[in-house]
Amino acid sequence: MDFLYDAIPEDFKRLETTLDHAYHGGGGGLMREVAEFVAESRGKRLRPAIVCLAARATGIDPASSHHIALGAAIELFHVATLLHDDVIDKAPTRRGRDTVNARWGDDVAILYADYLYATSFDLALSTLNPATLRVLTRATQQMTEGEFLQVERRGQWLTEQDYLDIVTKKTAVLFSAAASLGALVGGATPTRVAAFARYGLEFGIAFQITDDTLDYEAQTDRWGKRVGSDLAEGKQTLPLLRTLAAASEEDRKALLKVLDNGRDFATVHGYVQRYAGIAYSLDRAGDYCRGALSALEDTGASNEAADLLRQVAGQVLVRTH
Amino acid sequence: MDFLYDAIPEDFKRLETTLDHAYHGGGGGLMREVAEFVAESRGKRLRPAIVCLAARATGIDPASSHHIALGAAIELFHVATLLHDDVIDKAPTRRGRDTVNARWGDDVAILYADYLYATSFDLALSTLNPATLRVLTRATQQMTEGEFLQVERRGQWLTEQDYLDIVTKKTAVLFSAAASLGALVGGATPTRVAAFARYGLEFGIAFQITDDTLDYEAQTDRWGKRVGSDLAEGKQTLPLLRTLAAASEEDRKALLKVLDNGRDFATVHGYVQRYAGIAYSLDRAGDYCRGALSALEDTGASNEAADLLRQVAGQVLVRTH
Repeated sequence: MDFLYDAIPEDFKRLETTLDHAYHGGGGGLMREVAEFVAESRGKRLRPAIVCLAARATGIDPASSHHIALGAAIELFHVATLLHDDVIDKAPTRRGRDTVNARWGDDVAILYADYLYATSFDLALSTLNPATLRVLTRATQQMTEGEFLQVERRGQWLTEQDYLDIVTKKTAVLFSAAASLGALVGGATPTRVAAFARYGLEFGIAFQITDDTLDYEAQTDRWGKRVGSDLAEGKQTLPLLRTLAAASEEDRKALLKVLDNGRDFATVHGYVQRYAGIAYSLDRAGDYCRGALSALEDTGASNEAADLLRQVAGQVLVRTH
Repeated sequence: MDFLYDAIPEDFKRLETTLDHAYHGGGGGLMREVAEFVAESRGKRLRPAIVCLAARATGIDPASSHHIALGAAIELFHVATLLHDDVIDKAPTRRGRDTVNARWGDDVAILYADYLYATSFDLALSTLNPATLRVLTRATQQMTEGEFLQVERRGQWLTEQDYLDIVTKKTAVLFSAAASLGALVGGATPTRVAAFARYGLEFGIAFQITDDTLDYEAQTDRWGKRVGSDLAEGKQTLPLLRTLAAASEEDRKALLKVLDNGRDFATVHGYVQRYAGIAYSLDRAGDYCRGALSALEDTGASNEAADLLRQVAGQVLVRTH
């Protein structure tokens, strides 16, 4: 999504300044050390970009600080969820680096995430619009519900519907929040805000499904994760779930055996190819992409920022990393 | 503090209804099971009582829903911090029952606390007063800073100042938030809100110091904790820190040896008595109590609710459980 940086460079620049300030705002000593470590691990900033684009699509004054504050808020919120996720998953690394829990312990990761949540909400408060806060509190509630669902289903095979429920609540809700936050500070009517929320939600589902296919077919050097790592960690993703659902009784049994015994990537990949698990998943992602584009139509937005949001949705289907 | 229930019974009744609703609002299955378990473990509701009294002291219409919503918000916030604390401390029990982490695992405790934080902020939003949210976000930030300080100092002996910093940030900040939230929705001026905040802060420090003396001298059957449990868990509290600071070189060495080898309660208690660790601590608590009362004077409030806040502060010094 590199085209985004060229499209709204000033928003990205202001966003980085705000994030820098937020990370360096609290405490000293250990807290500062953790802040610096977390700040260094920069993501793609896709969620803040969506906030800024939705705000611009609905006519915010680009000089306003509101979309920047909310972009930073959603990024910190996202990072906080990753920190708690890594504790829950006992993950040793993320994006090729130690996790905070691996380096400093679960306690530090839990606390620093709590700090980031509070800072995120505080940034949202600076817009003086309580509706923006409610978007974040509702997102938190739904995301924890999604995590609970996942914890509850642990050790069982998910249905496609379970998978979609979890993806919706764990990933898509935050993209939906990003799009609606932008529209809110852009001054959109409630109906238009709802259409932006739907754009974010459908985009988010498409994004996660595509991401899950990359575990089988990504260009590893650009993706930043090793192919097969979701499989190795026992994550249940759509390509695999589809394969299990579509396989013959015999193949299903054989595949389950492989999954129970070391999950050899090449063997699993063979089954996924035989039953077109990737193609099926990308088809489903395509459906959600079209849903996102249709929601974007419903927003009635038609300017450069709306075009960029359209491109963002389209890009998902051609991701290779 | 039983007199509080008789003084504002209708507030307590409405508070319970709001809390019930909040606990039962989200998710199903496991999430509901955890919610019911957590809801059963009722605390003293001292923080919500302070919200209600500060609101009444500043002239809120008692029929308003705002002080009730904020009372519930502060209680859920408090419970969320306890859940994360128990994960951090790997605590197996609290108030004589299993902790959530012991019963369902760290993941469930972390997530349910996140859910409660969001619900707490959501309740505060219902007052449509962004200033109430900022009180909560700032409290979260300070409390995590306090926890960080504690994690950082682990394995070192605290100074009295370290202890006071940690107590202020971990405990007193929330009482301060409670008092200022009440004053905010009671419509107090910023100066009066600040005086209420100071009341809560000084009261909170006195409260925690007194609580820490009870570990040596409580009437166990009413306190709900076994005498000596803080000591057994290696918590550094003022009676002990004072004893270490005041002891002769010889006694200090002997005491440190006991603390390194099993921490026998009777022996440690003997040293604490010899150096008047309890009396010193209660003196300090008394100073903070007087500070709280003087802050209360500065609020200019003089009605029944203000009298009750005065009694609340006074009660701290005569706590036996």
